[in-house]
Amino acid sequence: MSKIFRLNLINSLTGYKSANLIATKTNEKINNVAVFSSVTHLGSKPPLIGFVTRPTTVPRNTYENILNHKYFTLNQITKSQIKSAHQTSAKYPKKISEFDKTNLDYEFKDSFKAPFVKKSPIQVGCEFLNEYVIKENGTILIVGEIKLLYIKNKLLLDDGMLQLDKGKIVTINGLDGYALPKLIERVSYARPN
Amino acid sequence: MSKIFRLNLINSLTGYKSANLIATKTNEKINNVAVFSSVTHLGSKPPLIGFVTRPTTVPRNTYENILNHKYFTLNQITKSQIKSAHQTSAKYPKKISEFDKTNLDYEFKDSFKAPFVKKSPIQVGCEFLNEYVIKENGTILIVGEIKLLYIKNKLLLDDGMLQLDKGKIVTINGLDGYALPKLIERVSYARPN
Repeated sequence: MSKIFRLNLINSLTGYKSANLIATKTNEKINNVAVFSSVTHLGSKPPLIGFVTRPTTVPRNTYENILNHKYFTLNQITKSQIKSAHQTSAKYPKKISEFDKTNLDYEFKDSFKAPFVKKSPIQVGCEFLNEYVIKENGTILIVGEIKLLYIKNKLLLDDGMLQLDKGKIVTINGLDGYALPKLIERVSYARPN
Repeated sequence: MSKIFRLNLINSLTGYKSANLIATKTNEKINNVAVFSSVTHLGSKPPLIGFVTRPTTVPRNTYENILNHKYFTLNQITKSQIKSAHQTSAKYPKKISEFDKTNLDYEFKDSFKAPFVKKSPIQVGCEFLNEYVIKENGTILIVGEIKLLYIKNKLLLDDGMLQLDKGKIVTINGLDGYALPKLIERVSYARPN
Protein backbone atom coordinates (compact mmCIF):
# COMPACT_ATOMS: atom_id res chain seq x y z
CA MET A 1 0.00 0.00 0.00
CA SER A 2 1.37 3.44 -0.85
CA LYS A 3 1.47 6.08 1.87
CA ILE A 4 -1.26 8.16 0.22
CA PHE A 5 -3.50 5.16 -0.39
CA ARG A 6 -3.17 4.15 3.24
CA LEU A 7 -3.88 7.68 4.50
CA ASN A 8 -6.99 7.99 2.36
CA LEU A 9 -8.25 4.55 3.37
CA ILE A 10 -7.69 4.79 7.13
CA ASN A 11 -9.05 8.34 7.22
CA SER A 12 -12.34 7.33 5.61
CA LEU A 13 -13.25 4.08 7.34
CA THR A 14 -14.55 5.54 10.61
CA GLY A 15 -17.32 7.31 8.67
CA TYR A 16 -18.32 10.94 8.40
CA LYS A 17 -16.44 13.47 10.51
CA SER A 18 -17.39 16.83 11.96
CA ALA A 19 -16.09 19.88 10.08
CA ASN A 20 -14.93 22.60 12.46
CA LEU A 21 -12.75 25.65 12.15
CA ILE A 22 -10.86 26.14 15.41
CA ALA A 23 -9.79 29.75 15.92
CA THR A 24 -7.19 31.00 18.40
CA LYS A 25 -4.83 33.92 19.05
CA THR A 26 -1.04 33.79 19.08
CA ASN A 27 1.09 35.59 21.66
CA GLU A 28 1.62 38.28 19.04
CA LYS A 29 -2.16 38.75 18.75
CA ILE A 30 -2.33 37.15 15.34
CA ASN A 31 -5.61 35.36 14.74
CA ASN A 32 -5.14 31.75 13.75
CA VAL A 33 -7.70 29.39 12.26
CA ALA A 34 -7.42 25.74 11.21
CA VAL A 35 -9.77 23.02 10.02
CA PHE A 36 -10.27 19.99 12.30
CA SER A 37 -12.24 16.83 11.62
CA SER A 38 -11.97 15.23 15.07
CA VAL A 39 -14.12 17.46 17.29
CA THR A 40 -16.39 15.22 19.37
CA HIS A 41 -19.07 15.67 22.01
CA LEU A 42 -17.78 14.43 25.38
CA GLY A 43 -20.67 15.25 27.67
CA SER A 44 -23.53 17.67 28.31
CA LYS A 45 -23.27 18.46 32.03
CA PRO A 46 -20.76 20.03 32.21
CA PRO A 47 -20.80 20.76 28.45
CA LEU A 48 -17.53 19.28 27.22
CA ILE A 49 -15.96 18.75 23.83
CA GLY A 50 -12.76 17.04 22.75
CA PHE A 51 -10.56 16.99 19.69
CA VAL A 52 -7.35 15.30 18.67
CA THR A 53 -4.21 17.09 17.54
CA ARG A 54 -0.64 16.18 16.79
CA PRO A 55 1.94 18.59 18.20
CA THR A 56 4.32 17.90 15.34
CA THR A 57 2.01 18.49 12.39
CA VAL A 58 0.18 21.34 10.76
CA PRO A 59 -2.32 22.54 13.34
CA ARG A 60 0.43 22.86 15.96
CA ASN A 61 -0.19 26.61 16.06
CA THR A 62 -3.65 25.85 17.35
CA TYR A 63 -2.24 23.60 20.07
CA GLU A 64 0.35 26.13 21.23
CA ASN A 65 -2.15 28.97 21.22
CA ILE A 66 -4.63 26.99 23.28
CA LEU A 67 -2.00 26.10 25.87
CA ASN A 68 -0.86 29.73 26.03
CA HIS A 69 -4.22 31.49 26.07
CA LYS A 70 -6.67 28.83 27.32
CA TYR A 71 -9.47 29.97 25.00
CA PHE A 72 -10.49 28.83 21.54
CA THR A 73 -13.60 28.72 19.39
CA LEU A 74 -15.31 26.02 17.31
CA ASN A 75 -17.06 27.23 14.18
CA GLN A 76 -19.14 24.95 11.97
CA ILE A 77 -18.19 25.04 8.28
CA THR A 78 -20.82 25.76 5.63
CA LYS A 79 -20.95 24.77 1.98
CA SER A 80 -19.73 28.19 0.82
CA GLN A 81 -16.71 28.06 3.15
CA ILE A 82 -15.31 24.70 1.99
CA LYS A 83 -12.39 25.96 -0.11
CA SER A 84 -11.25 28.53 2.44
CA ALA A 85 -11.65 26.07 5.31
CA HIS A 86 -9.50 23.48 3.54
CA GLN A 87 -6.88 26.10 2.69
CA THR A 88 -6.29 26.64 6.43
CA SER A 89 -4.61 23.20 6.48
CA ALA A 90 -1.66 24.61 4.50
CA LYS A 91 1.59 24.97 6.44
CA TYR A 92 1.70 28.72 7.00
CA PRO A 93 4.38 30.22 9.22
CA LYS A 94 3.13 31.15 12.67
CA LYS A 95 3.22 34.89 12.00
CA ILE A 96 0.81 34.55 9.08
CA SER A 97 -2.90 34.68 9.84
CA GLU A 98 -4.97 32.23 7.80
CA PHE A 99 -7.69 34.89 7.87
CA ASP A 100 -5.45 37.00 5.60
CA LYS A 101 -4.91 34.12 3.18
CA THR A 102 -8.50 32.94 2.76
CA ASN A 103 -11.99 34.38 2.40
CA LEU A 104 -12.68 33.70 6.07
CA ASP A 105 -13.18 36.69 8.38
CA TYR A 106 -12.93 36.83 12.14
CA GLU A 107 -15.01 38.65 14.69
CA PHE A 108 -14.76 39.18 18.44
CA LYS A 109 -17.89 38.98 20.57
CA ASP A 110 -18.77 39.81 24.17
CA SER A 111 -15.09 40.20 25.10
CA PHE A 112 -14.48 36.47 24.61
CA LYS A 113 -10.72 35.98 24.40
CA ALA A 114 -10.57 34.14 21.09
CA PRO A 115 -11.85 35.07 17.63
CA PHE A 116 -14.93 33.55 16.03
CA VAL A 117 -15.31 32.80 12.32
CA LYS A 118 -17.82 35.19 10.75
CA LYS A 119 -20.84 33.70 8.97
CA SER A 120 -20.47 30.38 10.70
CA PRO A 121 -24.02 29.39 11.79
CA ILE A 122 -22.77 27.74 15.02
CA GLN A 123 -19.98 29.50 16.94
CA VAL A 124 -18.87 27.97 20.21
CA GLY A 125 -16.51 29.65 22.68
CA CYS A 126 -14.49 27.13 24.70
CA GLU A 127 -12.06 27.14 27.60
CA PHE A 128 -9.18 24.66 27.70
CA LEU A 129 -9.50 22.22 30.60
CA ASN A 130 -7.02 19.42 30.09
CA GLU A 131 -4.97 17.40 27.62
CA TYR A 132 -4.42 13.68 27.41
CA VAL A 133 -1.46 12.24 25.53
CA ILE A 134 -2.44 9.14 23.58
CA LYS A 135 0.78 7.26 24.08
CA GLU A 136 0.03 4.73 21.31
CA ASN A 137 0.82 7.34 18.65
CA GLY A 138 1.71 10.60 20.38
CA THR A 139 -1.51 12.42 19.50
CA ILE A 140 -3.15 14.62 22.10
CA LEU A 141 -6.79 14.78 23.12
CA ILE A 142 -7.69 18.34 24.06
CA VAL A 143 -10.67 18.68 26.41
CA GLY A 144 -12.54 21.97 26.52
CA GLU A 145 -15.62 23.33 28.24
CA ILE A 146 -18.26 25.28 26.33
CA LYS A 147 -18.57 28.81 27.67
CA LEU A 148 -20.47 30.77 25.03
CA LEU A 149 -22.68 29.87 22.13
CA TYR A 150 -23.98 31.80 19.13
CA ILE A 151 -26.35 30.14 16.70
CA LYS A 152 -28.41 31.18 13.74
CA ASN A 153 -32.00 31.10 14.95
CA LYS A 154 -33.33 29.07 12.04
CA LEU A 155 -31.24 26.06 13.12
CA LEU A 156 -32.73 25.83 16.62
CA LEU A 157 -35.71 23.49 16.99
CA ASP A 158 -38.19 23.68 19.86
CA ASP A 159 -36.56 20.83 21.76
CA GLY A 160 -33.05 22.29 21.63
CA MET A 161 -31.68 20.33 18.67
CA LEU A 162 -29.72 22.31 16.10
CA GLN A 163 -30.81 21.02 12.69
CA LEU A 164 -27.49 21.27 10.89
CA ASP A 165 -28.77 21.00 7.32
CA LYS A 166 -30.77 24.21 7.80
CA GLY A 167 -27.39 25.98 7.91
CA LYS A 168 -25.85 24.04 5.00
CA ILE A 169 -23.25 22.70 7.42
CA VAL A 170 -20.91 20.18 5.83
CA THR A 171 -19.24 16.97 6.98
CA ILE A 172 -15.85 15.50 6.03
CA ASN A 173 -15.27 12.20 4.21
CA GLY A 174 -11.66 11.06 4.50
CA LEU A 175 -8.84 13.57 4.19
CA ASP A 176 -10.25 15.98 1.64
CA GLY A 177 -13.86 15.13 0.78
CA TYR A 178 -16.58 17.58 1.81
CA ALA A 179 -20.17 16.33 1.81
CA LEU A 180 -23.53 17.99 2.43
CA PRO A 181 -26.03 15.97 4.49
CA LYS A 182 -29.80 16.17 4.49
CA LEU A 183 -31.76 15.08 7.56
CA ILE A 184 -33.72 11.89 6.87
CA GLU A 185 -35.49 11.37 10.16
CA ARG A 186 -35.33 11.67 13.89
CA VAL A 187 -35.88 8.38 15.65
CA SER A 188 -37.67 8.48 18.98
CA TYR A 189 -35.96 7.44 22.22
CA ALA A 190 -35.40 3.68 22.12
CA ARG A 191 -36.91 1.42 24.78
CA PRO A 192 -36.56 -2.38 25.00
CA ASN A 193 -39.07 -4.13 22.73
CA MET B 1 -32.98 25.11 30.19
CA SER B 2 -34.73 21.75 30.58
CA LYS B 3 -32.60 18.61 30.71
CA ILE B 4 -33.82 17.42 27.30
CA PHE B 5 -33.32 20.82 25.66
CA ARG B 6 -29.77 20.96 27.00
CA LEU B 7 -28.99 17.40 25.85
CA ASN B 8 -30.28 18.09 22.34
CA LEU B 9 -28.42 21.39 22.10
CA ILE B 10 -25.03 20.26 23.40
CA ASN B 11 -25.17 17.06 21.37
CA SER B 12 -25.70 18.91 18.11
CA LEU B 13 -23.28 21.84 18.30
CA THR B 14 -20.08 19.95 17.48
CA GLY B 15 -21.49 19.13 14.03
CA TYR B 16 -22.11 15.86 12.25
CA LYS B 17 -21.02 12.65 13.95
CA SER B 18 -19.96 9.27 12.63
CA ALA B 19 -22.59 6.53 12.81
CA ASN B 20 -21.09 3.20 13.84
CA LEU B 21 -22.45 -0.03 15.19
CA ILE B 22 -19.92 -1.53 17.60
CA ALA B 23 -20.31 -5.29 17.94
CA THR B 24 -18.82 -7.47 20.69
CA LYS B 25 -19.27 -10.82 22.42
CA THR B 26 -20.20 -11.35 26.07
CA ASN B 27 -18.59 -13.99 28.26
CA GLU B 28 -21.68 -16.09 27.65
CA LYS B 29 -21.08 -15.85 23.89
CA ILE B 30 -24.01 -13.55 23.32
CA ASN B 31 -23.44 -11.14 20.45
CA ASN B 32 -23.89 -7.54 21.47
CA VAL B 33 -24.27 -4.52 19.21
CA ALA B 34 -24.73 -0.81 20.04
CA VAL B 35 -24.80 2.46 18.13
CA PHE B 36 -21.99 4.97 18.81
CA SER B 37 -21.60 8.48 17.46
CA SER B 38 -18.10 9.22 18.80
CA VAL B 39 -15.83 6.96 16.76
CA THR B 40 -12.89 9.05 15.53
CA HIS B 41 -9.77 8.50 13.46
CA LEU B 42 -6.67 8.76 15.70
CA GLY B 43 -3.89 7.95 13.28
CA SER B 44 -2.96 5.98 10.18
CA LYS B 45 0.37 4.37 11.06
CA PRO B 46 -0.35 2.41 13.16
CA PRO B 47 -4.05 2.51 12.14
CA LEU B 48 -5.81 3.66 15.31
CA ILE B 49 -9.35 4.62 16.17
CA GLY B 50 -10.90 5.97 19.35
CA PHE B 51 -14.37 6.30 20.79
CA VAL B 52 -15.88 7.60 23.99
CA THR B 53 -18.04 5.60 26.33
CA ARG B 54 -19.51 6.01 29.76
CA PRO B 55 -19.25 2.96 31.98
CA THR B 56 -22.48 3.79 33.77
CA THR B 57 -24.79 4.26 30.81
CA VAL B 58 -26.37 2.20 28.09
CA PRO B 59 -23.47 0.92 26.00
CA ARG B 60 -21.73 -0.39 29.14
CA ASN B 61 -22.09 -3.93 27.79
CA THR B 62 -19.85 -2.88 24.93
CA TYR B 63 -17.24 -1.56 27.35
CA GLU B 64 -17.24 -4.69 29.53
CA ASN B 65 -17.08 -6.98 26.53
CA ILE B 66 -14.14 -5.11 25.05
CA LEU B 67 -12.21 -5.25 28.33
CA ASN B 68 -12.95 -8.97 28.66
CA HIS B 69 -12.35 -10.09 25.09
CA LYS B 70 -10.10 -7.39 23.61
CA TYR B 71 -11.79 -7.52 20.19
CA PHE B 72 -14.63 -5.50 18.71
CA THR B 73 -15.87 -4.40 15.31
CA LEU B 74 -16.96 -1.08 13.80
CA ASN B 75 -19.68 -1.25 11.19
CA GLN B 76 -20.87 1.76 9.22
CA ILE B 77 -24.64 2.30 9.30
CA THR B 78 -26.60 2.63 6.06
CA LYS B 79 -29.88 4.39 5.36
CA SER B 80 -31.86 1.14 5.51
CA GLN B 81 -30.40 0.25 8.93
CA ILE B 82 -31.30 3.49 10.74
CA LYS B 83 -34.26 2.24 12.79
CA SER B 84 -32.55 -0.96 13.86
CA ALA B 85 -29.31 0.85 14.65
CA HIS B 86 -31.10 3.36 16.87
CA GLN B 87 -33.03 0.58 18.63
CA THR B 88 -29.71 -0.84 19.88
CA SER B 89 -29.51 2.16 22.22
CA ALA B 90 -32.39 0.73 24.30
CA LYS B 91 -31.44 -0.59 27.73
CA TYR B 92 -31.58 -4.33 27.15
CA PRO B 93 -30.40 -6.72 29.87
CA LYS B 94 -26.96 -8.13 29.21
CA LYS B 95 -28.25 -11.60 28.36
CA ILE B 96 -30.35 -10.24 25.50
CA SER B 97 -28.69 -9.90 22.11
CA GLU B 98 -29.67 -6.75 20.24
CA PHE B 99 -29.36 -8.87 17.09
CA ASP B 100 -32.46 -10.78 18.27
CA LYS B 101 -34.42 -7.58 18.87
CA THR B 102 -33.68 -5.74 15.62
CA ASN B 103 -33.40 -6.48 11.91
CA LEU B 104 -29.61 -6.49 12.18
CA ASP B 105 -27.79 -9.77 11.57
CA TYR B 106 -24.29 -10.76 12.61
CA GLU B 107 -21.65 -12.72 10.79
CA PHE B 108 -18.24 -14.08 11.74
CA LYS B 109 -15.36 -13.81 9.25
CA ASP B 110 -11.85 -15.23 9.01
CA SER B 111 -11.98 -16.42 12.63
CA PHE B 112 -11.97 -12.84 13.92
CA LYS B 113 -13.05 -12.95 17.56
CA ALA B 114 -15.93 -10.49 17.38
CA PRO B 115 -19.05 -10.43 15.21
CA PHE B 116 -19.52 -8.08 12.26
CA VAL B 117 -22.84 -6.52 11.25
CA LYS B 118 -24.08 -8.06 8.01
CA LYS B 119 -24.76 -5.74 5.07
CA SER B 120 -22.64 -2.97 6.50
CA PRO B 121 -20.52 -1.66 3.59
CA ILE B 122 -17.50 -0.98 5.84
CA GLN B 123 -16.69 -3.55 8.51
CA VAL B 124 -13.61 -2.97 10.62
CA GLY B 125 -12.14 -5.51 13.05
CA CYS B 126 -10.30 -3.87 15.97
CA GLU B 127 -8.17 -4.92 18.91
CA PHE B 128 -8.39 -3.04 22.20
CA LEU B 129 -5.13 -1.26 23.05
CA ASN B 130 -5.79 1.13 25.90
CA GLU B 131 -8.31 3.26 27.75
CA TYR B 132 -8.04 6.81 29.03
CA VAL B 133 -10.34 8.08 31.74
CA ILE B 134 -11.44 11.66 31.04
CA LYS B 135 -11.48 12.81 34.62
CA GLU B 136 -13.48 15.97 33.85
CA ASN B 137 -16.65 13.90 33.47
CA GLY B 138 -15.78 10.23 33.98
CA THR B 139 -16.10 9.22 30.35
CA ILE B 140 -13.58 6.81 28.87
CA LEU B 141 -11.70 7.07 25.59
CA ILE B 142 -11.17 3.59 24.18
CA VAL B 143 -8.23 3.25 21.79
CA GLY B 144 -8.20 0.37 19.32
CA GLU B 145 -6.01 -0.79 16.47
CA ILE B 146 -7.47 -1.80 13.13
CA LYS B 147 -6.73 -5.44 12.37
CA LEU B 148 -9.07 -6.43 9.57
CA LEU B 149 -11.12 -4.56 7.02
CA TYR B 150 -13.96 -5.56 4.70
CA ILE B 151 -15.38 -3.04 2.29
CA LYS B 152 -17.86 -3.07 -0.57
CA ASN B 153 -15.78 -2.65 -3.70
CA LYS B 154 -17.86 0.16 -5.16
CA LEU B 155 -16.86 2.48 -2.29
CA LEU B 156 -13.11 2.19 -2.89
CA LEU B 157 -11.60 4.87 -5.14
CA ASP B 158 -8.26 4.48 -6.94
CA ASP B 159 -6.39 6.53 -4.34
CA GLY B 160 -7.67 4.59 -1.33
CA MET B 161 -10.50 6.86 -0.25
CA LEU B 162 -13.77 5.19 0.62
CA GLN B 163 -16.54 7.33 -0.88
CA LEU B 164 -19.14 6.93 1.82
CA ASP B 165 -22.15 8.18 -0.12
CA LYS B 166 -21.75 5.32 -2.61
CA GLY B 167 -22.79 3.03 0.25
CA LYS B 168 -25.63 5.26 1.52
CA ILE B 169 -23.77 5.59 4.80
CA VAL B 170 -25.45 7.97 7.24
CA THR B 171 -24.25 10.52 9.77
CA ILE B 172 -25.77 11.56 13.10
CA ASN B 173 -27.09 15.04 13.96
CA GLY B 174 -27.56 15.47 17.70
CA LEU B 175 -29.00 12.65 19.79
CA ASP B 176 -31.46 11.12 17.37
CA GLY B 177 -31.21 12.71 13.93
CA TYR B 178 -29.95 10.61 11.03
CA ALA B 179 -28.83 12.41 7.88
CA LEU B 180 -27.66 11.25 4.46
CA PRO B 181 -24.72 13.17 2.96
CA LYS B 182 -23.78 13.60 -0.68
CA LEU B 183 -20.18 14.33 -1.63
CA ILE B 184 -19.80 17.88 -2.96
CA GLU B 185 -16.12 17.94 -3.82
CA ARG B 186 -12.66 16.84 -2.90
CA VAL B 187 -10.28 19.72 -2.34
CA SER B 188 -6.68 19.19 -3.35
CA TYR B 189 -3.85 19.21 -0.80
CA ALA B 190 -3.45 22.75 0.53
CA ARG B 191 -0.14 24.61 0.15
CA PRO B 192 0.60 28.14 1.37
CA ASN B 193 -0.63 30.72 -1.16
